[in-house]
Formats: sequence, structure tokens, C-alpha cells
Amino acid sequence: MDAPEKVTKQKKPESDIPLSVAERKERAWGIEQRDKKFNKIGIKYHPVKDTSTPPDNGRVTVLDHWLINQVVDMIGHPPLKIILWDGQAVYGGDKQDVPVVTLLDRGTLLRLIVDPEMQFGDLYSSGRIRFDGDMAGFLTIVFRSMGDYGAGGKLRRFITGLLHRTIGNTMARAKNNIYHHYDLSNEFYEKWLDTEAMQYTCAYFPDPQISLEQAQIAKLHHVCRKLQLKPGDTVVEAGCGWGGLARFMAQHYGVSVRAYNISREQIAFARNKAKEMGLADKVEYIEDDYRNIKGKYDVFVSVGMLEHVGTRNFKTLGDVINRCLRPDGRGLIHSIGRNQPGQMSSWTERRIFPGAYAPALSEMMDIFEHHDFSVWDVENLRLHYATTIEHWLERYEQHTDSVADMFDESFVRAWRLYLCGSIASFASGTLGLFQILFARGDNNDVPWSRAYMYSPESNNPGRREPQE
Amino acid sequence: MDAPEKVTKQKKPESDIPLSVAERKERAWGIEQRDKKFNKIGIKYHPVKDTSTPPDNGRVTVLDHWLINQVVDMIGHPPLKIILWDGQAVYGGDKQDVPVVTLLDRGTLLRLIVDPEMQFGDLYSSGRIRFDGDMAGFLTIVFRSMGDYGAGGKLRRFITGLLHRTIGNTMARAKNNIYHHYDLSNEFYEKWLDTEAMQYTCAYFPDPQISLEQAQIAKLHHVCRKLQLKPGDTVVEAGCGWGGLARFMAQHYGVSVRAYNISREQIAFARNKAKEMGLADKVEYIEDDYRNIKGKYDVFVSVGMLEHVGTRNFKTLGDVINRCLRPDGRGLIHSIGRNQPGQMSSWTERRIFPGAYAPALSEMMDIFEHHDFSVWDVENLRLHYATTIEHWLERYEQHTDSVADMFDESFVRAWRLYLCGSIASFASGTLGLFQILFARGDNNDVPWSRAYMYSPESNNPGRREPQE
Repeated sequence: MDAPEKVTKQKKPESDIPLSVAERKERAWGIEQRDKKFNKIGIKYHPVKDTSTPPDNGRVTVLDHWLINQVVDMIGHPPLKIILWDGQAVYGGDKQDVPVVTLLDRGTLLRLIVDPEMQFGDLYSSGRIRFDGDMAGFLTIVFRSMGDYGAGGKLRRFITGLLHRTIGNTMARAKNNIYHHYDLSNEFYEKWLDTEAMQYTCAYFPDPQISLEQAQIAKLHHVCRKLQLKPGDTVVEAGCGWGGLARFMAQHYGVSVRAYNISREQIAFARNKAKEMGLADKVEYIEDDYRNIKGKYDVFVSVGMLEHVGTRNFKTLGDVINRCLRPDGRGLIHSIGRNQPGQMSSWTERRIFPGAYAPALSEMMDIFEHHDFSVWDVENLRLHYATTIEHWLERYEQHTDSVADMFDESFVRAWRLYLCGSIASFASGTLGLFQILFARGDNNDVPWSRAYMYSPESNNPGRREPQE
Repeated sequence: MDAPEKVTKQKKPESDIPLSVAERKERAWGIEQRDKKFNKIGIKYHPVKDTSTPPDNGRVTVLDHWLINQVVDMIGHPPLKIILWDGQAVYGGDKQDVPVVTLLDRGTLLRLIVDPEMQFGDLYSSGRIRFDGDMAGFLTIVFRSMGDYGAGGKLRRFITGLLHRTIGNTMARAKNNIYHHYDLSNEFYEKWLDTEAMQYTCAYFPDPQISLEQAQIAKLHHVCRKLQLKPGDTVVEAGCGWGGLARFMAQHYGVSVRAYNISREQIAFARNKAKEMGLADKVEYIEDDYRNIKGKYDVFVSVGMLEHVGTRNFKTLGDVINRCLRPDGRGLIHSIGRNQPGQMSSWTERRIFPGAYAPALSEMMDIFEHHDFSVWDVENLRLHYATTIEHWLERYEQHTDSVADMFDESFVRAWRLYLCGSIASFASGTLGLFQILFARGDNNDVPWSRAYMYSPESNNPGRREPQE
């Protein structure tokens, strides 16, 4: 029973074959210990102080020790202290400055062993698992040390954070799923999203030190610039959230936008805002499914909707784009993705984000390849997303009291885990964020180089003057 | 029998469904007639003057007319004059300034109808089909007007130019294939490739007006910059051609390179050149298959080899990269690709480029997805490749006499068709050119934005000083 020592004793294989689990552990630890490089992606993670119920002081047996050892083996011996219900450290007792996980009773340990993927989230949410320390940083190290595929298996996924198994979302199911997440209330999201454009998608940090507001504006410019918007263009947006991108395009690039979304709360918010801003004649918000998009447009754009489409519907999405995009049109899809196809946490699926899936690039190509669309540019912004969610988490933690009043304490804890797991997923490379720029296969009206995306002003995260 | 008129009479459907063949025709014509936009991609195509045997003056029947009409229907009624063996125009007789295709006898027409994919190339090469005019421009229009998938079918492919059906290249077969193409003799390629770095791959034109030499140097810098080479890095190159990139990296970025290639002629050339340039201690050329790459490196790079690997071996290539790339390493693959999986001209396969295949992005992902590599950046440079080959064609046509002396007249004609078909494939969007930048999934040591690829000096196509 000497788990922490095991790590340093493990022999590093010399062969030419892929990294072993031990090598990956050493690597994750090495990076962590060397210069906290894994944390170079931005602000310090917010440390969590847990005030849930104390342990029940029951007896701890040899079997409990053995079970804990299995768990520690599976998650790659991370820098962590584990305390059981007797109040004693069963793992990492000698470690300083590491997160502390406390299991409040034997039932918690047993449930964790039986169905870790589902139970960790529920047990943490209900306060039967306590967590004190840097949750996002801890999860990042766990995800890294599990690294390659074989390792971790179910346990890897139990905290993998975001999304879940691919399903074909019917229009009715899509609507239910979206109600579950986006209609929690605009007030809830306003507490921790940026105040500028209310973007619940990855921001763009040309400089990692800029504010969340600046980075979301920079993201909107980055998208508009990639699409080469010009005054008079017609744009259709699939999945418009609270309508921030649509208003921004109309205001700063002189285009007219028709924006689709099936979330009633968001559409109502978006319409009000457009009215307030005097943009009601330039931006039309439609409460409908992307599959019902009508008309022809110069530009198709979708930021953060593909995660809710389901791979089975990717061809249908391609059909929609093919139907609505003019011959010389341009398109951009911005979506969470993965390095390879795979299913994700069933906890996140059931408790947080029903009906969502992060596709691999190979899967995303199903949108484009049936209609001879040509992919011009793919950019992976995963470190930008990790930083974005760090900002969200920081703000979220400042509002946990009022969130608890709106919902309850277990909601507060569930969303904390979801946000921390998401940071860890993007920081560890488990998830990616892809912006894919495309056009019809025979459209040659494209710039010679991508330097236009990086003109001096593109590094200026502030607003730029309308082009009209 | 009034084919040319048919086009203008065709009614344009108003429905919301994908473009019809007629719409695509109109579009291709419209673009052509409007402002020669399709030709905005660079220099004027080189007009071809045909001096092969004259027609045999035999009788032309109603059946011949009907057959010609079938052909014209299938290739989308392009701006073209077709003359049969009686010396009379059977199609496009009223057109000015269009290319002229002459079929020298009935056997040629019949062979073309029976197996167009294989026969067009052979009949043109042997001089039984004459072509006068802008061959690349003509093929571009044909490929465009055939546009979408359904249209054209076999006939689309008969001139689609480059590559062919996917096969798993064994090491022995790979070697034979490469002998066929790359060992034609260095002297042959020296006649028309750039004199600076002898690159038989897509150049990079930050400004389309720069010379081929400048554009190839710009390409080498573009690759090195994407890979963030720094002095002391170790690089492995898979498929190094005449070794230009390897020498360039060593000379200008202070790295040491081990470069693999199975073409004996190319390796001999590369070694001599490195010796001449005093780089023999920094660059090692190895005559061996990429599957035999040994060692660990900071950087993996492969420019223009993937086309010869075959999709069945993509996973193997991924295994090789996984074995040889250090944890913090970076990789770049530069390859011809397509908008969707598909087979290509059997003529090019048999006569020009045995064993090659241009994969779709979805297929390329098979290299990366088995080992949790993270794709950071994809850039499509197809217009750069069209321009590159226009430069090649222009030089090639200046040396056809000496090429005929080295081989024969039908070789000259076959390679002309291959080069023109390739220009047309890239200009029409049938083919793409992808540069894919990748790293291990958990490597966070990547720049925040891609602006570094577009620093002011990156627009300077000239050499920059060594960094050491």
C-alpha cells in the first residue's frame, strides 16, 4: 500500500514503441513539476473551497484501501490527497499543496467503483465527494496522465467533462435538449458570460492577457474577417445563441442577417437587444430548426451549434448549406471537436448537456464532402477555449450564492464540475475547437494567402469602426 | 443537330434544390464570359499549337454526328470547335477564339466513346486527336461545367488529370512506381522545375506575380515557419525529392535533417548537392522507405509524398510518426487532396503516375486519429498549385524539342496533357493542396495565434538570413 512511491519507481521502457502509461505519467508530472507549463495557457485556475458535509467517521478496512488503490492506478497517480470517511489520508498523505478529495462514506466509494462515469459527477454534486483545491488544474493533470486511448477507459470518461454519445437529434428531441440547457434562464448565463456580446462559445485571445469581453469581440471580428464580410452581404446564421454575432455583423460589417435558433428564451432576448440597438431592420431572428432554413445567402455561419446536430445529421446540414449558399458564397463552422471519434461522459450527457457530441474532423467532413465543398482553412483554438472557460469559472464562482438561490447547491456543484472538466478537456487536448472555413469547390474568389486574417488591426481586440 | 444552340435555350430551374447540370454550365460560362474570373489565378495559359498528322478526309455519317453530340452533352457544351476527319467543323463551327479539337479518323471517335477515360490521353499522345489552343483553360472550363458529382461520370474522369484509384503500396511496388515517375532522369525535371530548390511540389505565392523561384523559396519558408524550426532541432523528412527542403532547413534554420526517399536518382542528386553546399554534416539522405524511419525527432515533415502512400497505409504512416516524434514535436504533411474521396483518371495512373492517389481530408485524418495527434492548422493552397504548374508548363513548352530527343513525341504530348490536366484540376477545384500542421494531443507548446506565419517578413519571398 505505497501508491505514491510506485510512480517514481516505474521503469521507463527504452523501446521504439508508443509511449507507455508510465511514460505518459512521468511526462505529465514532469511538465507539471518543471515549470507548470501545462498552465501556460492563461490565468490561474480558481481554487475551490468545499463546505459540504464532513465525513461520517466510520471504520476503514483493507478492502477500502485496495479499492482506493485501484482508483489511483486508473487515474494515473496524480498529485492528490485522498481522505476517507475516517478523516485519514489514504493516499498522498505526505503531499503538500495538492488538491484534497474526501469520500464521505463507504457507499460513495462503492458507487464510484461500480459506475465511475456517472457517479463521480452525481456524488460530487450531492456533496458526498468533497473537493478542495484547483479542480480544473487537477483534472487537466489526470486527463494528461491518462493520455493515450487504452489508458483510463471508463474512468477517463467519468470526468471527461463535456459531451456525449452521438445520437440523431430529431427536431422534437433537439428542442427538448436545447430547453434543458439554454433555457435555464438568461439571468443565469448573464452572471458569468461576457457582458459585451453574451457569447457562450470559445473566445479568441490574440493576446492571452486581454479581458473576456475583448476576446469575445476579437472572436467575432476573427469570424467576420475569415468570411470576408462586405456591406450588403446577406448572411444566414444557424444556431445564433443570444444573437450577439448576428447583431455584431450587422452593426460592424453592414450585412443583413437571418439567424435561426430553437431556444425561445434566447430568441426573445436577441430580438429585444436588436430592437434596443436599432438593428431590427438588419437582423431577423427566427425561432426554428436549422433544417428549415429558407432562401439564398452570400454567407453561411454557425458558431457553436454543430455540437448539438449529431453526426447522423451532418449530411443533412450539408444539404441545407448547399441549398442556401450562393455560388460565390463563403461558409464558416465553429465547433467543439476531438482528435478522434469517441463518446464522452454520460454524466454530462444526462445532467448538463443532453444531445450534444463533439465530432472529430473526419466526422465533420461529412458536412462538406457530399456537395463538393472545398475546405479552405481549419484552425484549432482549443487553448483559447480553455482560457475562455477559466474566465467563465472565475465569474461563476463569484455568483454561486445567487445561483444556489435560483436553483440549489447541487446545481452549483454540478456546474462547477462541468466548467472545470471542460477547462481540463481543452487544456489537456481531450477536446479541440475547430473553425472551418469553406466555399464551393469551384469558387476561386478567395484570397491568395491567409495574411488578411492577421492584418495589424486584427491584433487589436477592440471594436473597429463600421465599414459602411 | 444543333448542339451549340441548346445551351442558351435551356431553362434554368427555379427550385431550391442543388444546382442542375444546366445551371452549372451557365455558371461556368457566365464566369468565363463575364471577366475571365476563372483565370484570375495567375499567368495566361500557354496556347498549344498542334503539328500532328492531318485528318484522313474520310466521309462523316449521321452516326458520327450523333456520337459527337453525346460527347458534347457529357462534357457540358464548352466553348470549343470540334473538327472531324473530313476537315469540317461538326460542333462550334461559328465560334471564334476557342480551342479546336480535331479527331483524325473514325477509329479515334469510336475508341473515345468506348473507353474515354483511358483513350483520350492515349489518342492525344499518339497524335490521333489534335488540340490547338489553350488546353489548360479549356480543361478548366470543362471540369467546372461538369461540376457536381452526378455529371460527367466516366467522361469527367477521362481528362481529370492527375491521380488514380487507391491501392495499398507494398514497399516493392512503391519502389517500382517511383522509378517510373521520378527516375525519368534528373535532366528531364531540371528543364522545367525551379532552378533554385528543384521543387516538384506546390509553390507558395504570397503575391501571384512573383517568380517560380521566389515562390518555391517562399513555400520552403512557409513550411519552416509553420513548424517553428529553431537551431538545433532534429528533423526527419519522409519523401525528400531532390532534397531541396532538407538542405534549405539546414542552411537557413540551423537544424539537422535525416531525409528518406526511395528514388535512387533523386538521392544521388541530393547527396551531391549537399556536398557542394557544404551541408553534408547537417543533412543525411537515406535511400529507404518511410516505413523504415528510425530514431526520434523534434520535427516530422513530408512534402508531396502522401500522394504515393495509399489510403490503406495511412494508419501505418501515423504509426511511424508516433514512433519517431518527440513529445513536444511538431509535424507537417503537405499533399494533394480532394474535396471528397474518389478515384481518378486511369490514364494518368497507367501512363504518368502509377500508384498515386489524392485523398480527401476525411481520409487523411486516418493518419492522425489513431494516435491522438491534434490537427492545429489546415491550409488549402490549390490556386497556388495551379499557378505553380502554369509556370512549369510554360518552361516545359520551351524544351519540347529536347524532351522529344530524350524520349519521343508522344511522351511530349502525354506530359503536356498531364500538366494541363493538373492545372485544370487545381483551378477548377477538382483537386486541392493541403498543408496540415499537427502535434501530439497534449502538446500545449503552440503559438496563441497563427499571426506568426504572417509576420511582415513572411511576405518577402526572398531568402532570409540563417538564424544561427
